[in-house]
Amino acid sequence: MKLLLCDVGNTSYYIFDGNNTYKKEVELFNPASITEKIYYISVNAAVSLKLEQLDNWINIAKYVDKTHYYETMGIDRICAVEAVKSAVVVDAGSAITVDVVKNKKFEGGFIYPGVEAMRKTYKNISPALDYSFNFDLDLDIMPKNSRDAISYGFFKTLYSEVMSHNLPVILTGGNASELQKIFKNAIVDEKLIFDGMKQIIKKAELC
Amino acid sequence: MKLLLCDVGNTSYYIFDGNNTYKKEVELFNPASITEKIYYISVNAAVSLKLEQLDNWINIAKYVDKTHYYETMGIDRICAVEAVKSAVVVDAGSAITVDVVKNKKFEGGFIYPGVEAMRKTYKNISPALDYSFNFDLDLDIMPKNSRDAISYGFFKTLYSEVMSHNLPVILTGGNASELQKIFKNAIVDEKLIFDGMKQIIKKAELC
Repeated sequence: MKLLLCDVGNTSYYIFDGNNTYKKEVELFNPASITEKIYYISVNAAVSLKLEQLDNWINIAKYVDKTHYYETMGIDRICAVEAVKSAVVVDAGSAITVDVVKNKKFEGGFIYPGVEAMRKTYKNISPALDYSFNFDLDLDIMPKNSRDAISYGFFKTLYSEVMSHNLPVILTGGNASELQKIFKNAIVDEKLIFDGMKQIIKKAELC
Repeated sequence: MKLLLCDVGNTSYYIFDGNNTYKKEVELFNPASITEKIYYISVNAAVSLKLEQLDNWINIAKYVDKTHYYETMGIDRICAVEAVKSAVVVDAGSAITVDVVKNKKFEGGFIYPGVEAMRKTYKNISPALDYSFNFDLDLDIMPKNSRDAISYGFFKTLYSEVMSHNLPVILTGGNASELQKIFKNAIVDEKLIFDGMKQIIKKAELC
C-alpha cells in the first residue's frame, strides 16, 4: 500500500509520499493545499486545530493503544517506539527525545534540548559561549577550549547516558545525520516514525 | 588575614567578608559603595570595565599562572580548580561548569547550562515542557511522565558524565545545595572560589 503520511512537529510538517520526505514550515505551509487522503500525527496543538477541520487529514493518534505509554507522551515518540523491537531511539529535532525499548516493551524515556535550542541556551548565558557545536569532538578527551567545552557539555553527557543502556542506538529526526558523528555506531533511520505510523494504520485496518 | 573578596558572575556579585557571602544583582549594585580594599575576579566584561575605574577594587586575575589552563577559561573556574587537589568541581550558576583536577593538575572541563537556563530552554521548545525540575527524581528509573522526562534529561546526563571520572565531587555556586539532591555524595563548598582566590593572593604576596 502506498500512503501519504505526515508527522507535524513544533516547527515543521514532515510529509512522506512512500519514497521521499518533504519538510514544510508550520508558519508557511497551507495543509488545505493537499487534497488527497493523508494520515497524520501532530504534537503541535495549533496545527492540530487546523487539521481537524480538513476531512482528508486523518489523525491516527486515537488508534494507538496508549496503555503502554504515558498520558502526555508525544505521539511522534510513540510512533517511533512502535517501529522498533529493542533499541534506544534518539529522535533529534527541536527537542531530542530518547526512548528505551526492550523486546517491544517501552521502558521509559527522557527529553533533552535539540541542537538549535542548546546553541541558543549557551549564547543566552553569555556572549562568550556563542559558538556552533564541534561535531568532530573527541569524546574521550576533556576539553581545553570554550567551543569544545560547550560541545562536550551538550554531547558527551547525552552520549554517556544513551550508551549506558547497552542497546542498539537508532537516530531519527531532522538532526539525525549530524548526530551520527557523535553516535558513530548508531543506525540512522529517518523514516522510523513513518514505519510506526504504517504499523498503527495496518493494525487499525484503516486501509 | 581577613580579606574582602568578590566573585563577579554573569548576573551577580558574590561578596565574601571572611564570614558570610552577600549576593548583589549586577543590574542594581553600585561597586563604588564599597570603599575598603577588595580583591575581585570577574567573568562579566561590562562590570570589569566599571571596576577598573575604582582604585580599591583589585583584580587578581593577572596573578594566576595561566599556563595550566586555556585562554578563554573563566577566571572563576580557575580559582575553584586552584582550591582543590583531586576532584570534579561542579560550579552551578547561570552555567554549570565541570572541571576535573587530579593531583593538582587541571585535566580539562566542560560547560553545561544552569538550572534556570535549562528550564527556559525546555519552555521555549514547547509550552508542553514548561515544568520546574524534579530534584527528587530517582535517577535509576526511566521516566514515564513529562516532568520527570525533562528532569532526567537535564540531571541524569550530567550525573552520568560527572560520576564516570571516579573522583570526589565538590559542588559550589548558587545552585550547589539544590544539586546535592542529585549528587547525593557530593561535598557542598560554597566558599571554594574564595579559597582559591585566597591562595592566589597569598602566593602573589599581595597582602
